[in-house]
Amino acid sequence: MANSKYEYVKQYEHDETLLRDCYLVCRVDGRSFHKFSSDHKFSKPNDDRALALMNRCAEEVMKQFSDIFIAIGMSDEFSFVFRKETTLFGRRNNKINSSVVSYFTGHYVLHWSEYMGDTPLQYVPSFDSRLVCYPNETALRHYLSWRQVDCHINNLYNTCFWNMVAAGDSEVKAANILKDTDSGGKNEILFSQFNINYNTLPAMHRKGTILVRTKVPQEVLTPTGETHIRMKNTVITTHEDLISDAFWIKYQLIPLPPP
Amino acid sequence: MANSKYEYVKQYEHDETLLRDCYLVCRVDGRSFHKFSSDHKFSKPNDDRALALMNRCAEEVMKQFSDIFIAIGMSDEFSFVFRKETTLFGRRNNKINSSVVSYFTGHYVLHWSEYMGDTPLQYVPSFDSRLVCYPNETALRHYLSWRQVDCHINNLYNTCFWNMVAAGDSEVKAANILKDTDSGGKNEILFSQFNINYNTLPAMHRKGTILVRTKVPQEVLTPTGETHIRMKNTVITTHEDLISDAFWIKYQLIPLPPP
Amino acid sequence: MANSKYEYVKQYEHDETLLRDCYLVCRVDGRSFHKFSSDHKFSKPNDDRALALMNRCAEEVMKQFSDIFIAIGMSDEFSFVFRKETTLFGRRNNKINSSVVSYFTGHYVLHWSEYMGDTPLQYVPSFDSRLVCYPNETALRHYLSWRQVDCHINNLYNTCFWNMVAAGDSEVKAANILKDTDSGGKNEILFSQFNINYNTLPAMHRKGTILVRTKVPQEVLTPTGETHIRMKNTVITTHEDLISDAFWIKYQLIPLPPP
Amino acid sequence: MANSKYEYVKQYEHDETLLRDCYLVCRVDGRSFHKFSSDHKFSKPNDDRALALMNRCAEEVMKQFSDIFIAIGMSDEFSFVFRKETTLFGRRNNKINSSVVSYFTGHYVLHWSEYMGDTPLQYVPSFDSRLVCYPNETALRHYLSWRQVDCHINNLYNTCFWNMVAAGDSEVKAANILKDTDSGGKNEILFSQFNINYNTLPAMHRKGTILVRTKVPQEVLTPTGETHIRMKNTVITTHEDLISDAFWIKYQLIPLPPP
Repeated sequence: MANSKYEYVKQYEHDETLLRDCYLVCRVDGRSFHKFSSDHKFSKPNDDRALALMNRCAEEVMKQFSDIFIAIGMSDEFSFVFRKETTLFGRRNNKINSSVVSYFTGHYVLHWSEYMGDTPLQYVPSFDSRLVCYPNETALRHYLSWRQVDCHINNLYNTCFWNMVAAGDSEVKAANILKDTDSGGKNEILFSQFNINYNTLPAMHRKGTILVRTKVPQEVLTPTGETHIRMKNTVITTHEDLISDAFWIKYQLIPLPPP
Repeated sequence: MANSKYEYVKQYEHDETLLRDCYLVCRVDGRSFHKFSSDHKFSKPNDDRALALMNRCAEEVMKQFSDIFIAIGMSDEFSFVFRKETTLFGRRNNKINSSVVSYFTGHYVLHWSEYMGDTPLQYVPSFDSRLVCYPNETALRHYLSWRQVDCHINNLYNTCFWNMVAAGDSEVKAANILKDTDSGGKNEILFSQFNINYNTLPAMHRKGTILVRTKVPQEVLTPTGETHIRMKNTVITTHEDLISDAFWIKYQLIPLPPP
Repeated sequence: MANSKYEYVKQYEHDETLLRDCYLVCRVDGRSFHKFSSDHKFSKPNDDRALALMNRCAEEVMKQFSDIFIAIGMSDEFSFVFRKETTLFGRRNNKINSSVVSYFTGHYVLHWSEYMGDTPLQYVPSFDSRLVCYPNETALRHYLSWRQVDCHINNLYNTCFWNMVAAGDSEVKAANILKDTDSGGKNEILFSQFNINYNTLPAMHRKGTILVRTKVPQEVLTPTGETHIRMKNTVITTHEDLISDAFWIKYQLIPLPPP
Repeated sequence: MANSKYEYVKQYEHDETLLRDCYLVCRVDGRSFHKFSSDHKFSKPNDDRALALMNRCAEEVMKQFSDIFIAIGMSDEFSFVFRKETTLFGRRNNKINSSVVSYFTGHYVLHWSEYMGDTPLQYVPSFDSRLVCYPNETALRHYLSWRQVDCHINNLYNTCFWNMVAAGDSEVKAANILKDTDSGGKNEILFSQFNINYNTLPAMHRKGTILVRTKVPQEVLTPTGETHIRMKNTVITTHEDLISDAFWIKYQLIPLPPP
């Protein structure tokens, strides 16, 4: 169609093209989710319905963007990793970043009632997101390890905190006690005061949720009636430790250093 | 809380800080809305319910981000203009851009049924967005004029096209006829074949929807029972021509050149 | 000529395009000039030969890049301002920045002996440079004022310091005394101890050197032997105050706000 | 010292920080060297004095910036590769880029007469430069191979061209003949018409000049009068093929893939 004399204003646009050969990590983060989770009475320290909803949104994002091969999420955040070679949207920063967060948010609202039962959605949640380049496998693994360790640190703290509050401590008192404890101290509080062995708590709470794009064997029936095994693309959900080599050897997602 | 040895990976992050003293324009655009609007049977050339939903989302964005002082939308897009002086999120590109598009998308899904009646939402719509700096008033006005002229060009074309199709032309034939007509030719087709005077069509279709943050007088009752006029912040909706000076003189949103 | 299969590596290049409609300011700064000026026995607080050399380099830069309309320099630095509309090298950051600093450095070495007499150049001086966008006249004037005020602050300090040292104070003692004085105190020291009225010192030392691209009237002889006045493009050197409006009214380099 | 109210203008500055873990390649390129080399009567196709001057400047750059571990140059260009881990100037693009090109240019002017004999420098040469991130060893090797292949392609062409012109062809005729020849054709012209075996021409012309930071054994005398071998840091000059693995195995500059 005809263009107008004003069209030159497109020349002010610039969308950064992200460096080739780098893993692109898009991290989606809930905005003001402290208030949002409190307004919607999320159970503490973990609300399994809300986590299931987050995981569902992340799965939908992975279905939509086939260059994402792994994702890790916890609490109100999810990180998506695109293949180094992705040419999605010409690797334009704003375009990729906005599409992912928009898609994630849309699913969060759409599926709310499916996961949150009769807790009505009082207002719109929102997320922000950022896109970061990681130029090699070591840096990428450190990024993912960072998120998983953070999940553990927060969950250990929150498990102590909310058990103490449930047992009658004020929030101020609980925070005061915890600020001087290390990891061992928190484990000790859980065990001695609440008879909780931290390591037996659900892996999803301790390790977060990992989505892995992989192939699984599938039985198919041939026209002649025989069964046949075919590898099928799929996204699986796991809560394994991804810090150790074992995870990466098992899933073969990225090149590993020679042993 | 404790930090892990992996936390250094934050050093890979960089979020561009947008140049000071520039208007920031965030344009949200529907992704694959050609298919989405067809799957959801939007009426053509304009679906007033879908436009009302877009306008609602834009109003919510303006309520949320008080540094947006004007927005213009049409079809499946909306542009939001932040004040030159905004310090929102330290003027970080990804942070502002993702927050706006996330908020917009969330509202689109949340309010769907309110506006689209018994047309169920079959799947999640999504939007992308970009953020552009405009360093002066002329450039900003040209940007907004560009969008309004585009709205007119598209609407004139679509009004012809869909009337021709409704009258029995194939889509291919209609497109073939229209590709050789200028603006006058399209007006002539509308008038002679369909008895439509283009200029009398709804302003919202021809000019798009403009949201302006302004102050309106409001009567308030004083404690002693007197009425009193106070100026109240509000967002008003209009479909005026914003290309001419008259609009900018009327609303006094930006500094104007001396007469 | 033929291309090789390796040529794809150009795709890793990205040279930021600077925002349209902004003044581009390129500031060239001496690297390690404290040592360089000491090794080459520059006189203190100001070495007029070295300043003349800097000014010469800046003039050559202005002759080379015709979109520079004003420059200000002092000590071992020079700032060059390009017109808002410049399309030099497609407004590419690295390209403009490197060309200016390379040209400046080349002249510094080439003209050294012309200005520094029998002081031999012992080693290569070098400069770094940066390129900054200023989106409007106010910001640009504030930038230039910043440099001129800095020139004054440094010159006042250095004039005190080196007079005190010349009079027998140790450098440590002079620095200690000066660190607690304000501008008035430093003027007082100059006047009472050294009988120097700061305001009568050379303008070049107090205000720096400003190069302005302008037109001057020139007499030309017509073929019929009459003299005729023609305006000729030239670069003039001045040491005026550029903070006040008077400078900008006089030279008419940029649009000024209505009175 | 005191700051002025104008100092806020520093907030407009932004100097891109280059991604961690990437090789930084700074390529310095002569500006308008076609004219410069003609004005200074460089011999064609290669002027060994001018090449020696370029190489000298590059060596000085490598001495100055110890994080550069390899460089390759030809004609009027030189590429410098910084270690992945370099923290030079906080990895700021403009700062690194301008410092390298300034230093290079300064040496070019300073050492001109040392290499160019009685050819006076008529005016200042200048260079531009760019800085590019290469995130892994493969990409870096491809970059360096690209430059070396380019050197070969240009040298083969120029050797034919200038021999044909020297033998009486016009420049237009020579160019016309060459534009339809491939590499084999050019070798054939050299051999049959000028009795030149291309592969026996100087390696510096065919492969460019490579500077490698390495350690070489050095005899040192101990206080007790014994001789002792110590490894000493140095920069060596070579004209080897760097495309094949052999070069990289020999110098061990970067991690190589397992055999």
